[in-house]
Amino acid sequence: MIIQLKSNIEPDQKEAIIKKVHSFKYEANEVSTQKGTYLIGIGTNEFDIRQIGNMPGIEDIHIVSDSYKLVSRKWKVKPTTIDLGDGVTIGRDSLAIMAGPCSIEGEEQIVETIQHLKDNGITMMRGGVYKPRSSPYAFRGMGIDGLKIWHKHASAAGIKIITEVMQVSQIEPMLDFVDIFQVGARNTQNFNLLDALGKVDKTVMIKRGISGTIDELLYSAEYVFSGGNEKLILCERGIRTYEKASRNTLDLNAIPILKEKTHLPVIADPSHGIGIRRHVEPMALASIMAGADGIIYETHSIPYKAFSDGQQTLDFRESAQLCKKMRAAYNLLSSF
Amino acid sequence: MIIQLKSNIEPDQKEAIIKKVHSFKYEANEVSTQKGTYLIGIGTNEFDIRQIGNMPGIEDIHIVSDSYKLVSRKWKVKPTTIDLGDGVTIGRDSLAIMAGPCSIEGEEQIVETIQHLKDNGITMMRGGVYKPRSSPYAFRGMGIDGLKIWHKHASAAGIKIITEVMQVSQIEPMLDFVDIFQVGARNTQNFNLLDALGKVDKTVMIKRGISGTIDELLYSAEYVFSGGNEKLILCERGIRTYEKASRNTLDLNAIPILKEKTHLPVIADPSHGIGIRRHVEPMALASIMAGADGIIYETHSIPYKAFSDGQQTLDFRESAQLCKKMRAAYNLLSSF
Amino acid sequence: MIIQLKSNIEPDQKEAIIKKVHSFKYEANEVSTQKGTYLIGIGTNEFDIRQIGNMPGIEDIHIVSDSYKLVSRKWKVKPTTIDLGDGVTIGRDSLAIMAGPCSIEGEEQIVETIQHLKDNGITMMRGGVYKPRSSPYAFRGMGIDGLKIWHKHASAAGIKIITEVMQVSQIEPMLDFVDIFQVGARNTQNFNLLDALGKVDKTVMIKRGISGTIDELLYSAEYVFSGGNEKLILCERGIRTYEKASRNTLDLNAIPILKEKTHLPVIADPSHGIGIRRHVEPMALASIMAGADGIIYETHSIPYKAFSDGQQTLDFRESAQLCKKMRAAYNLLSSF
Amino acid sequence: MIIQLKSNIEPDQKEAIIKKVHSFKYEANEVSTQKGTYLIGIGTNEFDIRQIGNMPGIEDIHIVSDSYKLVSRKWKVKPTTIDLGDGVTIGRDSLAIMAGPCSIEGEEQIVETIQHLKDNGITMMRGGVYKPRSSPYAFRGMGIDGLKIWHKHASAAGIKIITEVMQVSQIEPMLDFVDIFQVGARNTQNFNLLDALGKVDKTVMIKRGISGTIDELLYSAEYVFSGGNEKLILCERGIRTYEKASRNTLDLNAIPILKEKTHLPVIADPSHGIGIRRHVEPMALASIMAGADGIIYETHSIPYKAFSDGQQTLDFRESAQLCKKMRAAYNLLSSF
Repeated sequence: MIIQLKSNIEPDQKEAIIKKVHSFKYEANEVSTQKGTYLIGIGTNEFDIRQIGNMPGIEDIHIVSDSYKLVSRKWKVKPTTIDLGDGVTIGRDSLAIMAGPCSIEGEEQIVETIQHLKDNGITMMRGGVYKPRSSPYAFRGMGIDGLKIWHKHASAAGIKIITEVMQVSQIEPMLDFVDIFQVGARNTQNFNLLDALGKVDKTVMIKRGISGTIDELLYSAEYVFSGGNEKLILCERGIRTYEKASRNTLDLNAIPILKEKTHLPVIADPSHGIGIRRHVEPMALASIMAGADGIIYETHSIPYKAFSDGQQTLDFRESAQLCKKMRAAYNLLSSF
Repeated sequence: MIIQLKSNIEPDQKEAIIKKVHSFKYEANEVSTQKGTYLIGIGTNEFDIRQIGNMPGIEDIHIVSDSYKLVSRKWKVKPTTIDLGDGVTIGRDSLAIMAGPCSIEGEEQIVETIQHLKDNGITMMRGGVYKPRSSPYAFRGMGIDGLKIWHKHASAAGIKIITEVMQVSQIEPMLDFVDIFQVGARNTQNFNLLDALGKVDKTVMIKRGISGTIDELLYSAEYVFSGGNEKLILCERGIRTYEKASRNTLDLNAIPILKEKTHLPVIADPSHGIGIRRHVEPMALASIMAGADGIIYETHSIPYKAFSDGQQTLDFRESAQLCKKMRAAYNLLSSF
Repeated sequence: MIIQLKSNIEPDQKEAIIKKVHSFKYEANEVSTQKGTYLIGIGTNEFDIRQIGNMPGIEDIHIVSDSYKLVSRKWKVKPTTIDLGDGVTIGRDSLAIMAGPCSIEGEEQIVETIQHLKDNGITMMRGGVYKPRSSPYAFRGMGIDGLKIWHKHASAAGIKIITEVMQVSQIEPMLDFVDIFQVGARNTQNFNLLDALGKVDKTVMIKRGISGTIDELLYSAEYVFSGGNEKLILCERGIRTYEKASRNTLDLNAIPILKEKTHLPVIADPSHGIGIRRHVEPMALASIMAGADGIIYETHSIPYKAFSDGQQTLDFRESAQLCKKMRAAYNLLSSF
Repeated sequence: MIIQLKSNIEPDQKEAIIKKVHSFKYEANEVSTQKGTYLIGIGTNEFDIRQIGNMPGIEDIHIVSDSYKLVSRKWKVKPTTIDLGDGVTIGRDSLAIMAGPCSIEGEEQIVETIQHLKDNGITMMRGGVYKPRSSPYAFRGMGIDGLKIWHKHASAAGIKIITEVMQVSQIEPMLDFVDIFQVGARNTQNFNLLDALGKVDKTVMIKRGISGTIDELLYSAEYVFSGGNEKLILCERGIRTYEKASRNTLDLNAIPILKEKTHLPVIADPSHGIGIRRHVEPMALASIMAGADGIIYETHSIPYKAFSDGQQTLDFRESAQLCKKMRAAYNLLSSF
């Protein structure tokens, strides 16, 4: 059960509500986010909701049968929109496009990428400054200094930054230079990181785990939300299966299923989802038709020279073409 | 290596070519299909193609590095079109739509389904008369008698029939009443069935195995083609993964990958691919954007009364709507 | 529900029982095997078992909540023993060892393999005369002639033959030359083949499907049993997963789970289960400790010259050593 | 290439070696662990090893073709033994047994578990004080205070502690109270955590990821080793597959494969590997026969009252019996 508390609730009113929740043998977890304060009642007994529904201090109350609560659409039927400022939104009446290189490599690359984005009306730029790498001997990214250079140019151009955060200690230094913290597929169940991201007022995009279930992704989002941050986006980026003809198996089934289960926006990543440059376009278009709120993909001025993921990275000409087609597909879908 | 022989080749010319192939330490498999005669050279040694290229009796010769040969696009760059007669084609400049119930249940159902198809310009009807069932105690289909009734109505209405054949002994009795033999996901590697279907002059659609790889699907098609039948269609219908939120994981990555590897048409089955009625539409549209040549889906006048697969079956209203949207999506893609 | 009928039941008694079963809204499937006659009641309604339990002609009656019935241990608590004659048994108080080449290659190979088996007290020989091959251009086995030569030598030596049957039409010609029909992993859900094997009085070993679930394997066995043949063995041979360091993932969890769910003997195939020659021994020993009733593995006098599967085939020295160790492991387990 | 440096190497000697490595276009990563100093040369060019082999200051030099280096058995052929002090070792001539509850629940539970371990000659106790939980509303463990109480009793009894560390910030406070840091399956690719564990002088056991490959597990170990800590153990705990009859699919193939690829000890976790209490014993015995250096399993005085994982936890009677059987199996294997 989710109890939305009134913003002007009195302390003794809250105490009375908590007492009532306990009387049903339910735990009561208090959650305060940017948008409100909630009591999450966790328990399995049957009870009469009318006993609690008209207590003073309550804005609204919802029974949520899912074991994730705050991210469930059973509670919040209307889709959530993320507003990054400057007119950049995710999740309502527009297609969110996030493009950029796998790794941030240097100032020149940043500048030319931003120019490409502006030329094509793209308002969000992806790129890694901390790179999770299987081998300890591989390039691990430019780090905070790279991020600062990036931020200087991006903010000047009105471009929003999405980049991966890998550990709790990076959050604080990155905070002022990031618009969306990305939680990578290897960290989807790094619960300490999720807890910490629940404490900041910054949008978080959680990628589905390498072999994560749809439910686990929702639980991971529940961690951040119940920690106090409801600015959340989910991302389908392909799962690990027996099929090795593609890098991952982009699970587009997850898009309509997630859109039904949660009110959060859902983004698809066709670059990682198939991992083959010449097939990124059809998979991006397919993702949109499956109902994705946006697409994140990799682009680089000279893909074969990219520090990482060159085999799945579009050049700027392909990227420009893809944008046009994606918008046409999105418009068609919206017209239905 | 694939050697296309001239239709008027002399026996001693052919013998000389075979001898030459053997001289490279290659096996020579002779394949005669509806459209031509081929020698498939199987071996790994290097050789000089000019030694054989200008021998008399040869129409054309191709080196194919893939271990499947006749289905490879390295040999036949132009996509194959299947022509079922009466203007019904699969694979060229039009979207193939196959719709109908999971199981053929009786004459009334046949008649009302055909009416629905005609009302919506659909020219191919799916339906099972032999049903593969995990449990021996489940309904196994109406069998050949059901097929005959179906054929009577379908042929009168100009509707083509696609239905599953489960074993060699069914081929002969079914032959005159079927337009496309479907090989089901449990029979993708039933090599005797594939061999036997290589001997008939009837289109065959092979579904990907329940956990079949893309390469295995191509090999299975190679069985039929090398057996003498090149009227072939492939079908992606979802694979088995750890994710249980959907019945299968529709692997749309397979669509562009197959379209690149083979000249055969590729159909998608969103009904089995996700297994949830209300999500069939987005997955069908996504399949088209991924590049599918057609869609096969389940529809029934009253889905919840269907003998099987009701949970993933559209009613006629949903089916009609889907057709319109699919055609719009296909047209958009064709316009790019 | 499984109703075991008395062998001397009168027709009108049987009719009365069937009528009673129908009165519960249950289907009644009559099954006659080598050992008895059963009525399998399929339905979901609750009913009072006493209404039927003391009707004349009934030997025994069991409620089986599993959806497979005849293979369930809920009905037949005592493990089934397969008796192949000449003192060769599977499933009781002894370890069944089946060894031999992947493919039967010729008389010399047969003779030397039989000698190896006799030297090591092994009484069952495996080998393929019909080989399911992904590629149509690969060696497909010696066929029925190879089987006859094999049978001549094996029967003279008192060695039992287990070999794969791939299609219904092969059953009849193979019947007199085979002791155990093996259903391969690609045919586990070839229901027509299972149906046909239900009609013969010959032991059948069903391999788990390439990505088959444990339940699907039990259902496949139910097909054969309900068809009339209760001489059944199951075989775990590895499943398809994302891990490619081994050919398959030998799922030894399946051994104790199957032994609990069914009364049928369970064999493990470490050769296919790991696919790496030098690791077959530890996986065979592990399989025994997991509770397998026997082991089937590949051996050849000169593995690297084997027509197929050489990379997972033991030479005779390794095979001899493995037998000793397997018996020691089995004895230890029996002593617990 | 791995270059072991002499402990008394002069700075200019080291510099000369690094220069030489660079001259091959190789990177040179210096690694100092508890046991020595190494230069890891990373590159792909061919070079003549004699050019470097007899330079002063070099103890030994090895070409390692694997892309993980320090954990490879191609470099260090002899298996590594972990010595925890007080005669407790892992990896040589003895079976390591680690037993205890899923979660540390309180002092009484600690005391009775330690008594059970001592009664059965078990010298290592497992238990979680920080619990990774899918749902944010679940019990997350007793934390550092629980660990201190546990350590007080365990060290008094001569029992070593293995417990999970979930994030970098926990390492320092836990350090004095832990004998083995466990990296859980959700953190196998938490590279920051691995980096940080490379900096401490404490044994680390890394569990295979939920759908981690064998190679990824070795890379994760390479992270810790190359960070400076070579006291490492690997653990197979089951992988995620389509089969849902067991909690995970214990991949015992991984045991002989890992033992061949790496010199590190390999432990198996049958409790998580199958997740069903009554099947833990056969899977533990199977793990030993597959070649595991030890077993970690869950035990609790009253499993159904355990805070977590009760369904896969043995009671003390079962645990005692298992220990006897495991030792018998290990002794048999050692006798071969």
